[in-house]
Formats: sequence, structure tokens, C-alpha cells
Amino acid sequence: MKKFAVVLSGSGVFDGAEIHEATLAMYAIKKQGAEYDVFAPDMEQFHVVNHITGEDMKEKRNVLVEAARIARGKIKPLNEFDPAAYDALLFPGGFGAAKNLSTFAIDGPDCRINIDVEKAIKGMHSAGKPIGALCIAPVLLAKMLGKVKLTIGQDEGTAKAVGVMGAVHETTDHGQVVMDEENKLFTTPCYMLDADIAQIGEGAFNIVNAMLKQLEG
Amino acid sequence: MKKFAVVLSGSGVFDGAEIHEATLAMYAIKKQGAEYDVFAPDMEQFHVVNHITGEDMKEKRNVLVEAARIARGKIKPLNEFDPAAYDALLFPGGFGAAKNLSTFAIDGPDCRINIDVEKAIKGMHSAGKPIGALCIAPVLLAKMLGKVKLTIGQDEGTAKAVGVMGAVHETTDHGQVVMDEENKLFTTPCYMLDADIAQIGEGAFNIVNAMLKQLEG
Repeated sequence: MKKFAVVLSGSGVFDGAEIHEATLAMYAIKKQGAEYDVFAPDMEQFHVVNHITGEDMKEKRNVLVEAARIARGKIKPLNEFDPAAYDALLFPGGFGAAKNLSTFAIDGPDCRINIDVEKAIKGMHSAGKPIGALCIAPVLLAKMLGKVKLTIGQDEGTAKAVGVMGAVHETTDHGQVVMDEENKLFTTPCYMLDADIAQIGEGAFNIVNAMLKQLEG
Repeated sequence: MKKFAVVLSGSGVFDGAEIHEATLAMYAIKKQGAEYDVFAPDMEQFHVVNHITGEDMKEKRNVLVEAARIARGKIKPLNEFDPAAYDALLFPGGFGAAKNLSTFAIDGPDCRINIDVEKAIKGMHSAGKPIGALCIAPVLLAKMLGKVKLTIGQDEGTAKAVGVMGAVHETTDHGQVVMDEENKLFTTPCYMLDADIAQIGEGAFNIVNAMLKQLEG
């Protein structure tokens, strides 16, 4: 049975992992006969956003502790991730990918990447194992790996930014997956487009399906 | 197009709405051609639980504000719910149903039900519209409506408690839905059983499917 590591960045689209993308990715993995463990970095969130008003809540939350809500407590700190123990790595989106896993939301192409995220991506990439990223999370792959092929949907500003980091961007619509065969990278736009939850399910199913097909040769 | 009202109780299995059940219920609704709005009571959570350690976090969070994480900000206070505007009402589970929507986790059969939850259930029931509840949420129906038929899975203590409140309990396995035809109530066990996320998807799909069939006569 193929085993995925799913990396979360909190719990909630505006300051953490996008909950529908995270849940439906886990569902797509299990539904297609594979299994998963969940990881998140043990670090303070960049900030905490009231998801009704969009305002900063002036409190502190921990990325790992909040991500545990999505994982029902079954989660490990990302610094314990061992590429040898997994067949594939998957990053759901949400602003947490651009605020916690990296500083892309603040610094754009000059962003820094969390050290454990960097190790996870580089470890899987150098082992020749597939990496998937949904929504805004492909910016992590652009920053870490440079000249790769990916999609963040249709947003011109973000597409330009991943280009500055060296990546080649392909415009996509709902449910489409861009595969970089050479680097074994898989990306799909999800909520980078104006999507409904059924379209997120389609994107999650398709990216996991493409990764499993790659794994099964 | 049939319209569901989905009532959340926070965000996270141990102190709020169970995230997989909530997300997969919304997914099941949209995937089967219906639509939904999301509601939650505007009230302080009973408590805040660290989902890794299970310990009380000694902080305060608001049920509506946290539930907005699952709803991506598109949520309304439950006191604005109008039964006339919806075809069906659905309660995902999680301890929030037993700690915030009611006091069942503390008081058992002697529990109190949040006033807006009471109005929503009684309003839909008296209008002859279907109500669905996942996991532990059926206790709300037992307390409000008394002599009804429902399931909370296989847990003997909880089954006994719903019996004390007047309900008739049917034991169920993964994905099974109990329908009380007379009262138009639909219940399925989800994480009241030791389930994986694919089984939660099956339960969510089946309960929404049964409710839609009832609506379509």
C-alpha cells in the first residue's frame, strides 16, 4: 500500500491549511487505496485571522497544535519526517503555506521556506519520489527547486512570481493537474480559482490519482 | 435545487465540529446536486482543547468564529436561521454537538439544548422537513423530539442515554443510515465508530442521499 505524507500549515484558509483541500486530499488518498500520515511544523503561526471579519485576532496559536484539529490528533512534527518512510509527499493549500510554511505572502519571490519544509521537499525530490501541491502551495516547489513546471491556476500576479523564482507556469482550470515528469511534481489549482467544494474534491482526487499512477509506473 | 442548512459547533473534533464529517457532508451535498448554507451559534465554546495532548488550553474561542474556518468565512449566526428558507437541516458531529450545541457531554440525558438549536430543530420538524445528524449529534434530536428512531452507532452508554431521553436506538455499522420515516429524521454513526476517512465519506454521502430521496418523494 502506497503511503503519503500530508503536510499541513494550521487549520483554516486565511492563516493555516485550507480545510476542504486538506480533508478532501486525505479522503482521496484513502478512497484510492493508499494511506497517509499527517505532519506540520511545530512553530507559532504568522498570525491568527478571524475567518468572518478577516481581522487579526491578536492572539498566538501553534501550527502543529491547530493542524491537529484536521488530523484528529494523529499528527507528527515535521522535523520527524523521514523521506525513506514515504512514497509521496503532499501539500494542501491555504494561506498557511504562504505565511507559515514560507513567507511568500509577505516577501513574494524573495520568500524564505521553513527549514523542515525545505528538508522534506529536497529529501523527497533527491530520492526521486513524487511531490504534490494544491492551490498556493506550489510556490514552495518553485522556491526550493527553481526550474520546474507547475500551476497556481490563473492568477497573473502569482504566476509571474513563480516565474521570477524560475518556474514555468501553466494556466489551468478546475480539476486539472500539471505534471512535471522530470521532477515528479504534481500541482492543481483548487481554491486559487473561484471554486466550489465539489471542484476541490475533483482536484484532490485527480492529483492523488496522477501521483499513484506515477508510483505504479 | 434543494437547499440544506448545515449547523456547525466550532472546528475540531474534541471541542467543536468534527472537521471530516463537516467537510464531507458539505461535499456530499454539492456533489449530489444540492446546495448549502452554513450556520453556527454565536457563543463562547464550552472550552478549548489541545488536539494533540487532549488538555484544556485555558483560552476562550467563539463557536461561530471558529466554525467559519470550515465554512471559509461564509457562515451565518444560527439565530438568523429561517426554516422556511431551507429544504433540510444537517448536523455534523464532533464533541461540539455535545459541549456547545448542548450540554450532553456534561449532563447526559438531563442536558440542555442551545436555544437556537432548539428553534431550528423544532421549526424544521413542525414544517415536516427532513433533519439529519451524524455521529453524536443525534442526541440533539432525542432530547428535542423524544420518541424518535435513531442511531449513534454501537456505544452502549450513549445508546442507553438516548433511550432515557425517549428515543429508540438502532445499532449500525459504517455507512449505515437509520431513517425515522414518521419524523423525517436521518442519522448515521460516522466517528462514533472507529472509522477511517473513507468510511466517513460513505456515511456522509449516504445520509445526504437518503435525505434527498425523501425530499424528491
